[in-house]
Amino acid sequence: MNKFANVITREIKTHTAIQKRGGRPKKNESEKRDQKITIALTKDEKRKLEEMAEEEGLSVGVFVRKTLKQQEVI
Amino acid sequence: MNKFANVITREIKTHTAIQKRGGRPKKNESEKRDQKITIALTKDEKRKLEEMAEEEGLSVGVFVRKTLKQQEVI
Repeated sequence: MNKFANVITREIKTHTAIQKRGGRPKKNESEKRDQKITIALTKDEKRKLEEMAEEEGLSVGVFVRKTLKQQEVI
Repeated sequence: MNKFANVITREIKTHTAIQKRGGRPKKNESEKRDQKITIALTKDEKRKLEEMAEEEGLSVGVFVRKTLKQQEVI
């Protein structure tokens, strides 16, 4: 029996079966931001929005959500 | 000469050439809402937003723009 016999004969598992479940835990269903709305803006409106978001160090999406939350419309 | 001769011999024009330029006039470049932003929301956030928009008889897009305008972020 050669030294590779155990490698050859061991059970083959899929990546998914071997993989440890590390990383960020799954959000539950009601916390998922899986709904999308698209807002059409002029170039000037978008530019201003991007500047305001950047001043706060936020992405446009997070900044818009924050603004809508403050106004209690989401 | 039969009575259809004038129909047969008249100049053929394309639809575009014949068409009168009616309807809504073109917006100029800076007024066009040709920039899109997409906002990710939870199901609850989206539902609330849709309800708020509907109460005011506005589409979600118009309502969000109005809210962002009021907050002077667009």
